[in-house]
Order: sequence, then C-alpha cells, then structure tokens
Amino acid sequence: MASLSLRIDLDPGGRIGPGKIELLEKIAAFGSISAAGRAMDMSYRRAWELVEEINTIFGKPVVECQAGGRRGGGARLTALGLALVTRFRAVERAAALAAADHLAALQVEVERPAPPEAAPEPPAA
Amino acid sequence: MASLSLRIDLDPGGRIGPGKIELLEKIAAFGSISAAGRAMDMSYRRAWELVEEINTIFGKPVVECQAGGRRGGGARLTALGLALVTRFRAVERAAALAAADHLAALQVEVERPAPPEAAPEPPAA
Repeated sequence: MASLSLRIDLDPGGRIGPGKIELLEKIAAFGSISAAGRAMDMSYRRAWELVEEINTIFGKPVVECQAGGRRGGGARLTALGLALVTRFRAVERAAALAAADHLAALQVEVERPAPPEAAPEPPAA
Repeated sequence: MASLSLRIDLDPGGRIGPGKIELLEKIAAFGSISAAGRAMDMSYRRAWELVEEINTIFGKPVVECQAGGRRGGGARLTALGLALVTRFRAVERAAALAAADHLAALQVEVERPAPPEAAPEPPAA
C-alpha cells in the first residue's frame, strides 16, 4: 500500500516530522523521556536532544519535567506539546484522505514481479 | 510561513519526494536530463541515477530518451512520468489546503525575538 510521509517546516527554520511526533506521544504515554527513548531504541541523550530541538523551534517548552517524588520525577507534554502532536496527526489524516485516490492510482502503476506459481508452463514437448 | 513537505512511499519500497519530482519537471521543461540536472546543481550522473531510481520503483520508465538528430537527442517524460508529477503536485495542493489552519495555528506559537527597534528603553536616570 502506498502511503504519505509528511513534515512541517516552521518559519524561521525548524522541521518537525513523524519521528519527533512519535517521541512526544511516547513521552505522554510513559510520562518519561528515557522510557520514551527506550521504546524507540534511542538513548536518553538523543531523546533529550530531539525534545530540545523542538523547544528551540518554538522558543518555549513542549515537555515539562517534574522534580523528585518517590518515582524520581517524570515528564509530560505542555499544552503546546499536546497541540503540536494533535495538529500534526490531524494534518496527516486530512492529507491521507485527500491523497488516497492519487496514491492508489500510482500504486497500481508499480509493476510487480509475477509470483512463482503464476510462471507460464513450458510448452509441451 | 509554515509549510508542508511531503513524500510518497510506494510498496514494496520506494520513496518519492519533492527533489525527484522537481527533476522530472525540469526534464519535461528542458527536454534534457543534463540540462535539468544543471538547473538543480546536479551532475548528469546524479540526475540519471535519480531517474533510474524512479524507473526501478515502478519497474518501467518515467523518462524516455530520443536518439540522435541534429541536437543530439533529448529526453521527455513518459505518460507514467507525467502522471507521477501531476498526481504528486495535486496531492501537495490538497494536503496544503487541508493543513492550512493547523499550520497557521502552529506558526503562531513560534516565539519571535523582539525586533531591535522594539527593545525597551532603559529607565530614565
């Protein structure tokens, strides 16, 4: 099946794609940057860098960290982080819907190798 | 202004984005792979490799080369190449339309540094 992959470019310069959005979703789900990173085979350091990249794009945080407590604090999305995830997924859904007919028509053009059982029989001797 | 950047992933494996589409458009415009490559600061070899990548994705050509003639042949899009460009741009337009409100709302969230002339005056001594 054909599919779309989508990035948002914000002025003056910051690209947000499916990887960053998935990371934010996992931070929301696990309440932890390190757990979210682990779930995406990513070091804590890398996960933190990606969050910082998004913070820098907006000039304000998309994730807030809670200090201390018995479980050693945690992380959750700010209102902006939540809005970003929600709007990105909404754009994806709307774009996929708008693109569906075109994607199907292009996928039909992809030539598939004939499956082995469909190979023509050699002519009878 | 915020904008979308979009890629199409075709099964069983081939990604087509704005760069390949622009190359095909320039081949159509110039009637030449090398001229199209030059217009995109790309070697003939690189332009040809990209065309071949798209041909491989579909299992059939998106560009056809005409032999000889006084001007040494040329290149033009096949019906498939033309359909690919047309559908990709149509998907882009539809997606941009569907995304416009969300993009505008996200762009509003981007904090801009205050312009120099708006810097507060130091308090009077």
